[in-house]
Amino acid sequence: MTSAELFANIRKKKSFLCVGLDADFNRIPRVLLDKDYPLFEFNKRIVDATAEFAVAYKPNLAFYESLGAAGWMSLEMTINYIREKYENIFLIADAKRGDIGNTSGMYANAFFRNLDFDAITLSPYMGRDSIQPYLEFRNKWSIILGLTSNRGAEDFQQLNIGGKKLYEQVISISSKWGDSENMMYVVGATQSEQFKEIRKLIPNHFLLVPGVGTQGGSIEEVYKNGYNNQCGLLVNVSRSIIYADVTSNFEESVRQRAFEYCDQMKSLLENSGLI
Amino acid sequence: MTSAELFANIRKKKSFLCVGLDADFNRIPRVLLDKDYPLFEFNKRIVDATAEFAVAYKPNLAFYESLGAAGWMSLEMTINYIREKYENIFLIADAKRGDIGNTSGMYANAFFRNLDFDAITLSPYMGRDSIQPYLEFRNKWSIILGLTSNRGAEDFQQLNIGGKKLYEQVISISSKWGDSENMMYVVGATQSEQFKEIRKLIPNHFLLVPGVGTQGGSIEEVYKNGYNNQCGLLVNVSRSIIYADVTSNFEESVRQRAFEYCDQMKSLLENSGLI
Repeated sequence: MTSAELFANIRKKKSFLCVGLDADFNRIPRVLLDKDYPLFEFNKRIVDATAEFAVAYKPNLAFYESLGAAGWMSLEMTINYIREKYENIFLIADAKRGDIGNTSGMYANAFFRNLDFDAITLSPYMGRDSIQPYLEFRNKWSIILGLTSNRGAEDFQQLNIGGKKLYEQVISISSKWGDSENMMYVVGATQSEQFKEIRKLIPNHFLLVPGVGTQGGSIEEVYKNGYNNQCGLLVNVSRSIIYADVTSNFEESVRQRAFEYCDQMKSLLENSGLI
Repeated sequence: MTSAELFANIRKKKSFLCVGLDADFNRIPRVLLDKDYPLFEFNKRIVDATAEFAVAYKPNLAFYESLGAAGWMSLEMTINYIREKYENIFLIADAKRGDIGNTSGMYANAFFRNLDFDAITLSPYMGRDSIQPYLEFRNKWSIILGLTSNRGAEDFQQLNIGGKKLYEQVISISSKWGDSENMMYVVGATQSEQFKEIRKLIPNHFLLVPGVGTQGGSIEEVYKNGYNNQCGLLVNVSRSIIYADVTSNFEESVRQRAFEYCDQMKSLLENSGLI
C-alpha cells in the first residue's frame, strides 16, 4: 500500500484508527474457549465489529507466540480472513524485531511474503543493516521505534547526545535509509509534547501512535501536534476496544467503542480540512 | 540454571561453545527436505553431532517463524528433543524481543514456561519495564544486546553520550535492574578491543559472543580480553559449524568442526587455569 492509498482510506472511513489485536487467551470472552482456534474466532468477530471504523489492524506477535504453533495458526488465519473479506486494510505486524542482515531478511520474508503484512514494527538498536532487508520490499513498510509510550522510554530514548535526544538521533539518522513511502515511526501518545519537534525532523512520514486508551494518551493532543497534509497518523487502540465487553454479546460494545473513537477522529479530520 | 552450574558444565565439557541453530530451509542438506519437519530433523542431527562439545544451543527465532506454524512446531520439537535426551544444556532463544510490560510478560511466558528456554536475547531500547517481566523468572536469564557484531552497531550503539558510548550506558544502567545471576550481555566477537572496557563495567556477568566464524571474530582475542573466573563467555558459532557440509553424511564434518572449536577453547581454559 502507498501513503496515498492509505490516506484515501482514511478519508473514506473518516478515521485513522488502528485496532490492536492483542488477543489474550486469558482475557477473551469465555464463550470462545471451546473453539479450535479461540484467538482466531475472537479476532474474526473483533474485525467484523470494527472494520467500518478501522483503517488498520495490528496483531501483537507476543500474544500468538505465547500459544506456540496453535497461536501462530490463529495469526495466519486472521490475516487470511481479513485479506479475503475486506479491501484496503493496512496490516501491521507488531513484532519489534531487529537482527543482523541475513536474519532480518528471514523475518522480512516471514511477515511480508508468507503472511502478507503491509508493515512491521522494528527496533533500531542494531542499526542500518538490521532494517535494510525490510526496505527492499516494494510497497511494504518498516515502522521504527522512535519514542515509545511506556515509562522505560526515559531510560535510553531520552538520553542526551550532544544537545539531541537519542530518539531524535534515531529518527534523523534512520529516516535517511528510506523515505516517507517505506518508513514510519512509533511515537507514543503519552509523548504529545514531543510531536512538534518530531514533525520538524520528519514532516511527511506517517506515525504509528500507541498509548491512547488504557495508557492514557489524548487523541486531540496527538492530532493537534502531529497531523500533516496526509493525516500522517495511525492511532492504535487495543485493550479499551477489544475488551470493551467480555460477555457472549461482546461485539456490540466493541463496535460502539470503535465508533466513538472514529467519531472523535472524524471531527479532527473535518476541523483541519482534510475531509 | 545458575552461573555456577553453567561454569560446571563448561569445566566438564572443556568448552564454552554455543551452537547457533540457524536452520535455514534453503541451506539444510537436501536429503532432509522430504521429512515432515525438515528443520527439526536437521537440528536433531546437528545436536547429536555436537552435544559432546557444546554447552549451549541458540535457535534464532527468525528461521522458524519464516516457516509459520510448521516452523514453530520444529522449534518446539527441537527444545523437547534436547531436554529429553541431554542434561545440562543451556538453551537460548535468540529472539531480540523488547516491548511494553504486559507484552514482555507474554513473551517471557512463551519462551521460559511454554518452551523451557533458559535464556532469551532482548533489545534494550524500550527500557526497564520492557526487561523486568523476564527477570521475575527464577533461574532464567535475560541477555541484553550490548555491542553487537554487525556493521550497524556503529549507527547508534557507538554514539557518544557525555563521554560514554551508548552501549556503555546501556550496560551500566541496565545491569542495575538485575544481577549476574539473571542477566548476560551480547558483545560481538568483532568488537574484541572493547571487551576490556566492558569488563570494567560488568566483571562478573556472562557474555554471549556472536561473530566468530563466518563474521570473522577471533576466539583468542575475545578470551584474552573477556574471560573471568567463571569463564564468563559463551561463544556462539552458527553457520560455520552447522553448514560445514551439506551432503547426506553432513554429521561427520559438523562434528569435526565443533571438535576443532572446542579444542581451541580447551587450550584457552587450560592456559588460564580454569580447568
